[in-house]
Amino acid sequence: MVKLVALYKAPENKEEFMNKYENEHLPLAKQMPGLKKAEVYNINSLGGNKYFLCAELYFENEDALNAAMASPEGKAAAKNLMSFAKDYVEMHIANLK
Amino acid sequence: MVKLVALYKAPENKEEFMNKYENEHLPLAKQMPGLKKAEVYNINSLGGNKYFLCAELYFENEDALNAAMASPEGKAAAKNLMSFAKDYVEMHIANLK
Repeated sequence: MVKLVALYKAPENKEEFMNKYENEHLPLAKQMPGLKKAEVYNINSLGGNKYFLCAELYFENEDALNAAMASPEGKAAAKNLMSFAKDYVEMHIANLK
Repeated sequence: MVKLVALYKAPENKEEFMNKYENEHLPLAKQMPGLKKAEVYNINSLGGNKYFLCAELYFENEDALNAAMASPEGKAAAKNLMSFAKDYVEMHIANLK
C-alpha cells in the first residue's frame, strides 16, 4: 500500500482556504483513477504550528499513484491546488514498510 | 480516531539509525497503553529530501493519546527516541476530520 501525503502549513485566511479546499480541491482529487481511500486530518504540530492540515490519498502501489497523478483528473486536481495552496503544501509519497 | 505522526528527516547514518529505531524504539512505542495500530512508512518527499521515514500510532481519541504519552511506557519510548533521533524527528497530532 502507498499513499500520497499532502501536508499543509497554516494559511493566513484559514476559512477561505478551507472553502476552496473542501469545495474545489477535494472533489477533484477524489476523481483520481485508482484512488482507494482519501482521509483528511486536522493537524496540531507539537512544539510549534508547523502544519494545520493533512490529506492522505491511498493507492494500491506506487505505479497506481504515479498513473493517477499523470491522469487528466490528477492534473486537474494539481492545477487547482496550485491556484490557492502552492505556498502552503508539501507532498510526500509514503510506502508502508 | 486520532494518530500521533512522527516524521523523520534523514540522518547521516541511516543504517545505524534504523537499527536503533526498529530494535529499540519501535518495541518500546508498541508497549504504549491504548495503542490501536502502529504503521511505519518509507517517505519520498516530492521536490526534495525533506523526510525519509514516518511512523503513525493510532489511538481511539486524543485523551487516549495523551494518556499513552504520559504513561511510563510512553515516557520510556520518548526518552529512548530522544537519545538518538532528537535532531531528526517532528511530532504531529492528526485528528480525522
